[in-house]
Amino acid sequence: VRTSELSADAVERGEYRHYMLKEIFEQPRAIADTLEGRISENRILPNIFGVNADALLSRVKHVQIVACGTSYHAGLVARYWLEGLVGLPCSVEVASEYRYRHVVVPEGTLFLAVSQSGETADTLAALREGKRHGYLGSLTICNVPESSLVRESDLVLMTRAGPEIGVASTKAFTTQLAALALLVFELARLNGIEPARYSRLVAELATLPRVVGEVLKLDPEIAALAERFVPKHHALFLGRGVHYPVALEGALKLKEISYIHAEAYPAGELKHGPLALVDEDMPVITVAPNNQLLEKLKSNMEEVRARGGELFVFADTDAPVAQSGSRGAVLKIASGGNLIAPAVFTVPLQLLAYHVAVLRGTDVDQPRNLAKSVTVE
Amino acid sequence: VRTSELSADAVERGEYRHYMLKEIFEQPRAIADTLEGRISENRILPNIFGVNADALLSRVKHVQIVACGTSYHAGLVARYWLEGLVGLPCSVEVASEYRYRHVVVPEGTLFLAVSQSGETADTLAALREGKRHGYLGSLTICNVPESSLVRESDLVLMTRAGPEIGVASTKAFTTQLAALALLVFELARLNGIEPARYSRLVAELATLPRVVGEVLKLDPEIAALAERFVPKHHALFLGRGVHYPVALEGALKLKEISYIHAEAYPAGELKHGPLALVDEDMPVITVAPNNQLLEKLKSNMEEVRARGGELFVFADTDAPVAQSGSRGAVLKIASGGNLIAPAVFTVPLQLLAYHVAVLRGTDVDQPRNLAKSVTVE
Repeated sequence: VRTSELSADAVERGEYRHYMLKEIFEQPRAIADTLEGRISENRILPNIFGVNADALLSRVKHVQIVACGTSYHAGLVARYWLEGLVGLPCSVEVASEYRYRHVVVPEGTLFLAVSQSGETADTLAALREGKRHGYLGSLTICNVPESSLVRESDLVLMTRAGPEIGVASTKAFTTQLAALALLVFELARLNGIEPARYSRLVAELATLPRVVGEVLKLDPEIAALAERFVPKHHALFLGRGVHYPVALEGALKLKEISYIHAEAYPAGELKHGPLALVDEDMPVITVAPNNQLLEKLKSNMEEVRARGGELFVFADTDAPVAQSGSRGAVLKIASGGNLIAPAVFTVPLQLLAYHVAVLRGTDVDQPRNLAKSVTVE
Repeated sequence: VRTSELSADAVERGEYRHYMLKEIFEQPRAIADTLEGRISENRILPNIFGVNADALLSRVKHVQIVACGTSYHAGLVARYWLEGLVGLPCSVEVASEYRYRHVVVPEGTLFLAVSQSGETADTLAALREGKRHGYLGSLTICNVPESSLVRESDLVLMTRAGPEIGVASTKAFTTQLAALALLVFELARLNGIEPARYSRLVAELATLPRVVGEVLKLDPEIAALAERFVPKHHALFLGRGVHYPVALEGALKLKEISYIHAEAYPAGELKHGPLALVDEDMPVITVAPNNQLLEKLKSNMEEVRARGGELFVFADTDAPVAQSGSRGAVLKIASGGNLIAPAVFTVPLQLLAYHVAVLRGTDVDQPRNLAKSVTVE
């Protein structure tokens, strides 16, 4: 009889050195699972939010998103979609702030909670508190079916990321974006979006697993890039529009597991303060999708270069962004379209944080001071 | 004939080493000037927003605040007031984000621009863009009477801070808060606030110049405290509720002039990421007013201490917050009441940033990379 020397932990991790890396690579599958049985032939299938969900969703006039940490960043992305694609006003707030202030709830407001665990203390308290505020109803996007948030919400849409073990959330975030996109499309349909546009959007979402799979192939290049961050103590992440939350999420990943003090800013705010921090010790990471904000972003990038900042750009393959001099780097990402770009651009930032943390020798899956689910205040 | 060796610059600065310090100390006067002729006997005088302003203000159902940098932080404070005291829903957004996304404007929305110079390019563009969005009307809070924002707005309330020369805004911020409070009270009156409560609020605002004058006396203590920040490369500022924007403003001041990488977080988000950064090299600065959130904040403070973080607390004189061990410090501030507390607590954070910058030998009035007014994108 020979006993295995592999621990249960190692078996679960399989070929991966850390759960976080495994979970980053599981994203194509996790997103596909989240979309499975929910879209078909470029439309959303009926009743994916539950029978009679349309009766509630068709009356929504305003959306209030409440979440914490990474889930809050997913909510910020959804706000751009809701206002831009559906025309519904949307507010997003961190749960610990929302629950303790006097909030005003406009008529017809949907309370939308986003949480991986469904047990995040502040988000759960905000939902319970919200029931006294006259919301039209509540909807939770969550990864754990039996959780408190799921049980206590009127409507539910599960992400199907599977168990997430790494403290730094990865596949939970991108599946939240997929689930939020489904909600946005459903609200768009109920608000009379042009059918051809609706079909195009759903079709683009359906490509997300494949596009993320392609981006994951850049792992060796990102691992090489990571070496240049190892001696750094700071980093600034810049994004504009729907990619500002992506910058926030990229900074949070680096912060959580590498302990590099990374901070995100909307690129247009650079001149209002953070530019003072930029010097050769403050690398600047930007996400440059090929959208209508690219030229604005490029001018922000020039401001950084002019002050001696080292610039690392994750640019859309179609975006005319070129390496400038020997410092910094430009890495080309095939975003797959403006709708899915926030999810796609998040993946290289996850990989960057992961490899920097490994090189710095931190405990990647269990970073100091943090717990997986914040179930106490 | 003897020619003076004093430059015009030095004459204007008077006894002060830098414009910034002069402007910090001018705040009691600047705030008093901003309130002068606008409040009397615990009420706001008629027509301070212009003749017939009531006709517009009485129809306001929602407020959209748009601003950049420090002015954005003033707007964030006003949101807590508008929702908490008036019951009007309010959104606040940085102008460079607001102007480039598809925004949805609820019926009866007042567009509220806040800018020291009145020439901030993104804020001005947002106002012009906003005119196409069907706003009820626009109001600008500004320090320069002949500026573009003032000329192009329906209603105006001038801060009377006088010229601000230091790039890092100080008296502009606190006078913006005073002006925003006047607007909030006017909207509260038009929305039927209980008269006794209204009078109490106006009376509290009237004490702001005196209370700020008292806080300025702590300058020597804050200068001594500043020495402990000189070798630091990082700082975390924490606040809750209406004091979260105060933390943002404190972090921005330190960032702008001392080049220490300071970042602010709503204290409740600590466990969702930034706590991983906390160690002996990351001082944590908190604002601890004696309000209903104090106990929550104290538990956040314990989390920081338990991870070896050095904690610097600006606590209300009435707040039961005690020094813990030999590290960090607690400085008591007489806040003068919950309404004016955000303006009052900002002052020691301004002084802290100033003294740290002087000790680090930076160009306080002209920090690297920054301009006073951001009149280009």
